[in-house]
Amino acid sequence: MSKEITPRAQDYSQWYNDLVKKGGLAEHSAVRGCMVIKPHGYAIWEKMREQLDKMFKETGHVNAYFPLFIPKSFLSKEAAHVEGFAKECAVVTHYRLKNDPNGKGLIVDPESKLDEELIIRPTSETIIWNTYKGWVQSYRDLPILINQWANVVRWEMRTRLFLRTAEFLWQEGHTAHATKDEAVAEAEKILEVYAEFAEKYMAMPVLKGTKTASERFAGAVETYCIEGLMQDGKALQAGTSHFLGQNFAKAFEVVFTNKAGQQEHVWATSWGVSTRLIGALLMAHSDDEGLVLPPKLAPLHVVIVPIHKTPEQFAQISEKANQIKQDLKSLGLEVKYDDDDSNKPGWKFAEYEMKGIPVRIAIGPRDMENGTVEVARRDTRTKQIMSMASLKTDIPKLLDEIQQNIYNKALKFREENTTKVDTFEEFKKTLETKGGFLLAHWDGTAETEEKIKEQTKATVRCIPLDASKKEAGKCVFSGKPSEQRVVFAVAY
Amino acid sequence: MSKEITPRAQDYSQWYNDLVKKGGLAEHSAVRGCMVIKPHGYAIWEKMREQLDKMFKETGHVNAYFPLFIPKSFLSKEAAHVEGFAKECAVVTHYRLKNDPNGKGLIVDPESKLDEELIIRPTSETIIWNTYKGWVQSYRDLPILINQWANVVRWEMRTRLFLRTAEFLWQEGHTAHATKDEAVAEAEKILEVYAEFAEKYMAMPVLKGTKTASERFAGAVETYCIEGLMQDGKALQAGTSHFLGQNFAKAFEVVFTNKAGQQEHVWATSWGVSTRLIGALLMAHSDDEGLVLPPKLAPLHVVIVPIHKTPEQFAQISEKANQIKQDLKSLGLEVKYDDDDSNKPGWKFAEYEMKGIPVRIAIGPRDMENGTVEVARRDTRTKQIMSMASLKTDIPKLLDEIQQNIYNKALKFREENTTKVDTFEEFKKTLETKGGFLLAHWDGTAETEEKIKEQTKATVRCIPLDASKKEAGKCVFSGKPSEQRVVFAVAY
Repeated sequence: MSKEITPRAQDYSQWYNDLVKKGGLAEHSAVRGCMVIKPHGYAIWEKMREQLDKMFKETGHVNAYFPLFIPKSFLSKEAAHVEGFAKECAVVTHYRLKNDPNGKGLIVDPESKLDEELIIRPTSETIIWNTYKGWVQSYRDLPILINQWANVVRWEMRTRLFLRTAEFLWQEGHTAHATKDEAVAEAEKILEVYAEFAEKYMAMPVLKGTKTASERFAGAVETYCIEGLMQDGKALQAGTSHFLGQNFAKAFEVVFTNKAGQQEHVWATSWGVSTRLIGALLMAHSDDEGLVLPPKLAPLHVVIVPIHKTPEQFAQISEKANQIKQDLKSLGLEVKYDDDDSNKPGWKFAEYEMKGIPVRIAIGPRDMENGTVEVARRDTRTKQIMSMASLKTDIPKLLDEIQQNIYNKALKFREENTTKVDTFEEFKKTLETKGGFLLAHWDGTAETEEKIKEQTKATVRCIPLDASKKEAGKCVFSGKPSEQRVVFAVAY
Repeated sequence: MSKEITPRAQDYSQWYNDLVKKGGLAEHSAVRGCMVIKPHGYAIWEKMREQLDKMFKETGHVNAYFPLFIPKSFLSKEAAHVEGFAKECAVVTHYRLKNDPNGKGLIVDPESKLDEELIIRPTSETIIWNTYKGWVQSYRDLPILINQWANVVRWEMRTRLFLRTAEFLWQEGHTAHATKDEAVAEAEKILEVYAEFAEKYMAMPVLKGTKTASERFAGAVETYCIEGLMQDGKALQAGTSHFLGQNFAKAFEVVFTNKAGQQEHVWATSWGVSTRLIGALLMAHSDDEGLVLPPKLAPLHVVIVPIHKTPEQFAQISEKANQIKQDLKSLGLEVKYDDDDSNKPGWKFAEYEMKGIPVRIAIGPRDMENGTVEVARRDTRTKQIMSMASLKTDIPKLLDEIQQNIYNKALKFREENTTKVDTFEEFKKTLETKGGFLLAHWDGTAETEEKIKEQTKATVRCIPLDASKKEAGKCVFSGKPSEQRVVFAVAY
């Protein structure tokens, strides 16, 4: 039934593309590098967005909206930032089209050239800090705890649906603080929010850590990140939170009068997650039959499929099914009764498996006699008989069990694919044979990091935050002393 | 206390600008014509969005996301559409910046010129219909009922915060149907959704009607609209729903096989409302003290302000206030207890009046003794004493009353400012003295419409849908016969 999906073992990359396409999640558009996010994919993003937004608000943040356009000169103001972001980007140079006087359709009106080019935001630190300048005078105006849900554009040459696209959707938090400690605490607080979201909602275990200098956000003093492990043994950076120091405040001259009456530059953070998370979700849990969605992010929790031969049976089953649907909906679950008679039950089963709906309930004539239903779990693809009378208790319990099982499975996979390596031979061999996370000592130099990357494609994914795990050792590559193991992996 | 707001009677336009600025709703950005939507303004948009999204979903629609960019050639494909939208727009011509070899900062890399320019979407019919082409083959693939929440850009020369900005936020629905009747019914259904939203949530009465040919959306066969009346007697178009016929299906070759097995072009609608609604909301209800927000769209329903002299009083009042806050929050209301001791009660009163918070509760030592609170309504600026014990019943009732009162007031204003006129003298005189909606006979020609506009600035806002109100008459301008009165007004 799912013959349309290439098995993971055969071609992981094609499996992913098939998932996205056959699952009705997204497709390439007529514009190079830009995707169309289709209804099922967008519904997952809405679920993610809703939960994250709730968590941001619970931690004191509010939403706002800043312009899509950034004046070219703004990008040059922060020295490190310009190197990272002012390269491949969409540049608006004109503001008018006109009819070609030679009758060849529309042309750009040369008279509409802008004095200064505008860049489509690749990230909004510059335009936001230019705005904050007008908002901050005294410590009383701080902190500013703002988040923005927006589209951004980075002119990527090689794109992959959800994982890397020219335009993508994201949220970007931009906060301003009176002290360094407060800003660092904010960046760390958001890291915890991201980790909680990944683990409790996406059912995806993540490592928390900091980035090495070479992997840091352009303009950050410290970049915190969460890293997940995909089924092909590659790592995926799922969210980053940056302590920006006073870099942007200095670039945009944002100063305030502190409690002691002195002028000081404001301290900053920024943090974001994007539609890339949908790619992570897919690659962390799905199988050769299609998507496997954790119930907490599934747009639809339960689908009910009737199995009947006669119109009388169909009428009876429909009445019962609609009652079950209402019962489950009253618990806050999303439920669909698929009574479309133009598709056979077998087609529906395959379709909802493909789309990752966590629970399927089938009702046939025998079930009607027995007061039972057949319940199939998407995660394990196992079936069980349940009493109609207790579905209001049993289905929520089953959904919790599925959520937990998906997480446990991913955690077990990560544990099995996390390897301590002490020599560079082991390092290379582990990468070649199983991939995954490698815990290895590193001498802390960019030079070693670069050489390891050249030879193995693996990078330092993070320097783990958990200080209790510090242990002295020798760099796997140079043999120089190291204070703790860091996490290497080949990454998306 | 509100001396910072220019009174409406003195300068309506300045009053509006003051509202937006002092209310913390939005400000101009460093990018010409683009606004920064500040937290309080964005919170109102979130409320609007949440309610509209719910109504769209209840009527069977799903969300999706299409690219920000539209290839230039797409805009030329629908003849009327190109005239309307391919003029003032943001044009992306290059995709890379580089360092100026002469050391003068960043310049556009001339080698990154795009083969075909990309336009920032002014509206998405073209890119969406180009996508639908791949989705539709048979009548079984229809209808497609999709909505998108997005930013769009129209390079406006004269901008006003919320009312007309180069970039704005909106939703755009784009539906595809197998029959003309179904598409017309869809466009009319959405008009009803918009009208219900305007009246029940924005508390703004609206007229429903169709546009004349000259005011129609570029590419539409019929444009339905809702029109509100602002306090200065000008009309504001608050939402439009378009029946597009087969125009876009023909332009993008979107055909399907109907039930009879024949190939046919798909029928279309599109419909949208934008952050302009925030401008409408402000101008419909606010007063010289600041915003007046209808409770159903207020980000904060109730603010509690303590009035105390001693720390003991403050502690007692705070305990009670927090209890009231929790009680009201348990009802689903948004409540804030403002215990910030650095601002005086009088400052707080003015601040929350400015921001339009519907209900303010003040608690002082005498109230604590009596078990009462002082409750102030923002809409009427009247105060009453309420028993602490019954706030859980009385406050929701009061909020309903406020919602209704704001609507009634706006309806009364509209009724008083809607005038039947039968001569062009009356027409001009009414416009000069009171403005508002003029119900007048019109001969149905674009010529007359244009002449009236030239002489009075008034346009036909809509041809009312209510057929029961048809009455024969003579055109107020030309004297030619007319079947029904239409609505004229000077508009935003």
